[in-house]
Amino acid sequence: MRAIVDAPHGRVRIGIGDDAAAWQPSRSHLSVITTDALVDGVHFLSEKMAAAAVGHRAMASNLSDIAAMGARPVLATIALGVTAATTEEWILSCYRTMNALASAHGAQIAGGDVTRAPSLLLSITVVGEVSRTRLKRRDGGRPGDVLGVTGPLGASRAGLELLRHDRTVDAAARAAALRAFVAPQPRIREGRWLAASHHVHAMMDCSDGLALDVSRLARAGGCGATITDVPIAAEAAAVAAAAGADGRAYALEGGEDFELIAAIAPRAFAHLARRFAARFGRPLRAVGRLDAEPGLRLQESGEAPRDLAPGGWDHLQKETPPAAR
Amino acid sequence: MRAIVDAPHGRVRIGIGDDAAAWQPSRSHLSVITTDALVDGVHFLSEKMAAAAVGHRAMASNLSDIAAMGARPVLATIALGVTAATTEEWILSCYRTMNALASAHGAQIAGGDVTRAPSLLLSITVVGEVSRTRLKRRDGGRPGDVLGVTGPLGASRAGLELLRHDRTVDAAARAAALRAFVAPQPRIREGRWLAASHHVHAMMDCSDGLALDVSRLARAGGCGATITDVPIAAEAAAVAAAAGADGRAYALEGGEDFELIAAIAPRAFAHLARRFAARFGRPLRAVGRLDAEPGLRLQESGEAPRDLAPGGWDHLQKETPPAAR
Repeated sequence: MRAIVDAPHGRVRIGIGDDAAAWQPSRSHLSVITTDALVDGVHFLSEKMAAAAVGHRAMASNLSDIAAMGARPVLATIALGVTAATTEEWILSCYRTMNALASAHGAQIAGGDVTRAPSLLLSITVVGEVSRTRLKRRDGGRPGDVLGVTGPLGASRAGLELLRHDRTVDAAARAAALRAFVAPQPRIREGRWLAASHHVHAMMDCSDGLALDVSRLARAGGCGATITDVPIAAEAAAVAAAAGADGRAYALEGGEDFELIAAIAPRAFAHLARRFAARFGRPLRAVGRLDAEPGLRLQESGEAPRDLAPGGWDHLQKETPPAAR
Repeated sequence: MRAIVDAPHGRVRIGIGDDAAAWQPSRSHLSVITTDALVDGVHFLSEKMAAAAVGHRAMASNLSDIAAMGARPVLATIALGVTAATTEEWILSCYRTMNALASAHGAQIAGGDVTRAPSLLLSITVVGEVSRTRLKRRDGGRPGDVLGVTGPLGASRAGLELLRHDRTVDAAARAAALRAFVAPQPRIREGRWLAASHHVHAMMDCSDGLALDVSRLARAGGCGATITDVPIAAEAAAVAAAAGADGRAYALEGGEDFELIAAIAPRAFAHLARRFAARFGRPLRAVGRLDAEPGLRLQESGEAPRDLAPGGWDHLQKETPPAAR
């Protein structure tokens, strides 16, 4: 692993090989930390996915949590569990991808641990930092806030559909959906940009589907929410159509798109969205609003509002994980 | 989990429930971080161990890595993988023990993630901090340094023996061995105390047996080592005798005792050991020395030196993990 991972540099003083890694935290910033474990058969299917995809998705999911705080990633540690059947090539390819993605976002892999396990597993921890005034929590949303999302949703779910079933879709949609599933992009730059605005009251990443994550953001702030517009990725619509499914369901319940959801002061939204589009070349989509009334509702153009079950994927509530169905 | 874990306080600003935890790192200190994954059937046996023991050992192992840097722990994050058969009581008991041990050493559990997994697994990350001048690396040892160990070894291996086999030993030895296996104590205070001395050139924890860990410490500093005295815990000697085994082997190869090994300037050792004994009420045992000559040797009183295979448990080198044998 040490051959793959960049040697400690900058603020990282001790990398892989000692009892612990060491770094110099920024004096003026808060540190943030997130841990996620991904398990073969639950979060990924090693039989159907390359090692690079497994590594990329795992690292992206953790970087996305850092993005959701408005922070920038500094370092990552990785615990990798391998079976007797895992090849050295698999391990190296997985590490290379994780190192490349972390590196692309300015983070170093500073610690690692490889152990035997009954199934492949990856547990990644990422540490980031953010100035105290920019840290975005989940619980800052207020009734009336506009919910903005940094990109269209459902593409990752569409990619999973293509891995599971033979569906006829055009080549561009196929490629985009598979890319979204295999190599999702954490929104670090977008998160830091949004965090710089005090009009952004709360932020989180959309990892479990728009419905569940909006309901979490609302509940954290003591609010309810109404989703007024479901932003469906074009490739999600195409794959859903081929599968006889609803693209809206992919966006509402699919998860793992890793876009950010922000609760934004209503008077500031239009201006912020214009600047976002100018900065990132794509829209900050208004998908709904926070309400004083608890609960989650869906009210698309012209329709009457209806209650929406949060849906999405919750590891403790559902019996069968999506990847294992 | 939030009900069990202390609410964020002190320098921890955001605990469990947001995308990431946040804390204010100390301005004058380095931060350190360690991650370890423990898997059922590899690192522990959930059928033979209570949830509290699983949680305690996992947290102790990570805190021990922090101790080995001379640091004090600040916060921990936990990824817990549970099977369909895992009860809520199991999860709560495991969390309570981890919280209690972390708390006892001044650390807060600040992040958590529970996921479905094909077997129980625990991946813990602990962040600590240490002043720059006190940070102890593995690679600072020099030929001639005395190797000091903070306590006798082999008791954890003896406890494992008692869990596996019916052995006749006296009640006190049985209790001590089981306690060493089930509830090992990380040497945080001892590590911080040793780290304050610039005569301590290198430090690490003894988690994989004295032979393997001494050989690692030596190699990290470009040295070899000679072990001149194997400190065998009384309960390890008693259990080994009952099992027809060698207590020295328990100490040299057993692992998971979580004592610290320090490479100490020879002229300072006696004074440091006297102060250590006065401070902690037990000896800092001289177990050997670092040599200019590479390799690992054993030379007990009056005997000729002989080469020693590092032994101990290495997850990538051995086929069958000790707990699964």
